[in-house]
Amino acid sequence: MRENAKTPERHAQRMAAKQKIMNERIARADKEQGILLVLTGPGKGKSSSGFGMLARALGHGMKVGVVQFIKGAFSTGEEAFFRNLPNVDYHVMGEGYTWDTQDRERDVAAANAAWEQAKRMLQDDRYHMVLLDELNIALRYEYLDLDQVLDDLQARPEMQHAIVTGRYAPQQLIDLADTVTEMKVVKHAFKDQGIKAQKGIEL
Amino acid sequence: MRENAKTPERHAQRMAAKQKIMNERIARADKEQGILLVLTGPGKGKSSSGFGMLARALGHGMKVGVVQFIKGAFSTGEEAFFRNLPNVDYHVMGEGYTWDTQDRERDVAAANAAWEQAKRMLQDDRYHMVLLDELNIALRYEYLDLDQVLDDLQARPEMQHAIVTGRYAPQQLIDLADTVTEMKVVKHAFKDQGIKAQKGIEL
Repeated sequence: MRENAKTPERHAQRMAAKQKIMNERIARADKEQGILLVLTGPGKGKSSSGFGMLARALGHGMKVGVVQFIKGAFSTGEEAFFRNLPNVDYHVMGEGYTWDTQDRERDVAAANAAWEQAKRMLQDDRYHMVLLDELNIALRYEYLDLDQVLDDLQARPEMQHAIVTGRYAPQQLIDLADTVTEMKVVKHAFKDQGIKAQKGIEL
Repeated sequence: MRENAKTPERHAQRMAAKQKIMNERIARADKEQGILLVLTGPGKGKSSSGFGMLARALGHGMKVGVVQFIKGAFSTGEEAFFRNLPNVDYHVMGEGYTWDTQDRERDVAAANAAWEQAKRMLQDDRYHMVLLDELNIALRYEYLDLDQVLDDLQARPEMQHAIVTGRYAPQQLIDLADTVTEMKVVKHAFKDQGIKAQKGIEL
């Protein structure tokens, strides 16, 4: 987690707005409302936890949206499973990142196009839950404007849950979030023991 | 995490068997094999992560089994979503625990009946993945015999993934596991801020 406030004033404004909302929430603590949940840290289970919550929400008959900010082998299982279900609006970011400093503009463009999909769902109260899978990576590489992302998250409908996954959640996102879990590695078969990544668990 | 070895010899035998298997695995590191994954700690996302991996496995066309060792409001979303899908064998433990020291026998009987379902799947290589949701709680309360559970886990088919969730994973299970993630609370809306648990996220 890191501090990367480009505009401390907007951060302060967001925190003031959050405090106001929190006070209102506490005053009527029995009311349901949308939660901003962040799943971060190096341990296994961040994305899969987000997808498990998606399944739970679908089990309640909710409508959900997904934007995956990393395209790759890791996402094939979830995509195959969720993409064509009813009540699921599923987007995968363009071609994936080039991770190439020579072609940074293309990565920025791909991430921003994905964010447009996210923003559309974050402005639509028919979505009960929006999963922004690996968004933290796009923020880490500064492919997206953090202030814009935080403002859009904060402006979402009151009843909508938003889930952000990925390592290196920025501190300002953690400040804005309602619930944050950090996944810690106790041990890791593949890294510690040189075992190949396993389909179903890792892929 | 705690040490609760009733029979240190069996623990030593299991660890020796595991070491042998690990050495074989490392010798042929490109081979796929089943992983024993433990998701523990106090943070949010343990069960949902297990269910997300279930969805991923289903996306790969795998057959999966689930035994939920806690019955309650928290499991309703997952159950509604997964129970009737093809390729899913779904069990929820009897009536749930009484949590009553006066009726401990009933809790022990319910947990052991659930373990029989788990064991059946852990002996059947048609199951690619077995999710043992909140098993750690049944172990914590000593409703199940830890040595029996560990032996059954270790004896499962070579290609089968097993996922164990719940707080307070016993140290011997961590020792046996291939991958262990501990979920740490950075902040928690409901506990820290007095907000009601939210359907879709918590329920």
